[in-house]
Amino acid sequence: MEPTRNDPIPHPAVRRLSLYLRQLESFKRKGRRTISSRQLGESLNFTDAQVRKDLAYFGQFGHPGVGYLVDDLIAQLKHILGTDKTWNVALIGAGNLGRALMAYNGFEAKGFHIVAVFDADSAKIGQRIGPFDPDKRTYLIQPISELKSTIDQMGVRLAMLAVPVDAAQEVADRIIEAGIRGILNFAPTSLNVPEEIALNAVDLAVQLEQLSFQVNFATVGAANG
Amino acid sequence: MEPTRNDPIPHPAVRRLSLYLRQLESFKRKGRRTISSRQLGESLNFTDAQVRKDLAYFGQFGHPGVGYLVDDLIAQLKHILGTDKTWNVALIGAGNLGRALMAYNGFEAKGFHIVAVFDADSAKIGQRIGPFDPDKRTYLIQPISELKSTIDQMGVRLAMLAVPVDAAQEVADRIIEAGIRGILNFAPTSLNVPEEIALNAVDLAVQLEQLSFQVNFATVGAANG
Repeated sequence: MEPTRNDPIPHPAVRRLSLYLRQLESFKRKGRRTISSRQLGESLNFTDAQVRKDLAYFGQFGHPGVGYLVDDLIAQLKHILGTDKTWNVALIGAGNLGRALMAYNGFEAKGFHIVAVFDADSAKIGQRIGPFDPDKRTYLIQPISELKSTIDQMGVRLAMLAVPVDAAQEVADRIIEAGIRGILNFAPTSLNVPEEIALNAVDLAVQLEQLSFQVNFATVGAANG
Repeated sequence: MEPTRNDPIPHPAVRRLSLYLRQLESFKRKGRRTISSRQLGESLNFTDAQVRKDLAYFGQFGHPGVGYLVDDLIAQLKHILGTDKTWNVALIGAGNLGRALMAYNGFEAKGFHIVAVFDADSAKIGQRIGPFDPDKRTYLIQPISELKSTIDQMGVRLAMLAVPVDAAQEVADRIIEAGIRGILNFAPTSLNVPEEIALNAVDLAVQLEQLSFQVNFATVGAANG
């Protein structure tokens, strides 16, 4: 059963699919063949009802008296998430963060391949840039004007945007026009994109800010209590 | 009014505080002095009721007939989030991702200072390592055994964990024992930490996986519809 636009899937449920998948892969590495919704839930501090409800949006995966077959559910979740195939990804921005993203091992392992890198800086264009790790591949930095022909040629649908805040909206507009359908935005600013474009944002400073709230709050709470 | 542990604050409301703060700073840069809950909400696609409800957890900030004073609300939100002061942060792991975090401009701008870097790799310990950007400072890599004395000395409460998956839980246990109260985990695995420890996770591959779902889903939905 494929999800359709007629069945709205809550965003948090989709996020939890990623967590279930990670956890199932961890169980698989430990040699587990089957798992119950209770065991899967407990490993993530969710109730078994939550696990069953989330999975029920996408189909019936359990087997009475057995639970879930680990291999089977991993394959199904990858199919739902679209990671049973590989994705070619464009990286926009070859600064410090861009170079870190080139080096990050987690992408290749999940089937995301950075196949082309673009930058607006004429001093970088035409150079080969890579992370400081000498074992990693380097990339020829292309001008953004070549984005459309490159992504058409390589079937790129996803882009990571690691450009300065001031450039982010303009670059987003250009890459959407060039055919990008999903953007992972690392610039700490909100972007306006058409409804049909998928957009996720990673603001690393916000993540620390949320931690500082929690640590602060625990202290204040303790002092007041 | 300070939040206390007796008033549970929903986690999504705290996340939205960070968004409100970013947006207010953007309005301030454009010269705005006051703003209504409707205007603040519209700029983020939230309702005005949502904005008022989120802020009401923390106090009464609006002025009848005026709305919010931009400078004032920025200061209040920073105080609530704990970013009206600076935080010393330890970075654990001086690999590719660690070096990218050293280079990321967004942390300093929000008052988060990476003051010490630790690694388990004896080949790195004692070396000075920095990002490839020559304008950036470098860090003396310390062994994890020095964590406690260093963080005591420098008043470090927050740590960023950029270590391999296999080491993540053990390192987390050690840094909590050493006195760290909040962890931003970049290792793509879930960690078990005591209830009083604040934990946030950034899994960059999961972010792309969520995008791939959305792009996939839009295509499947269109094909089925």
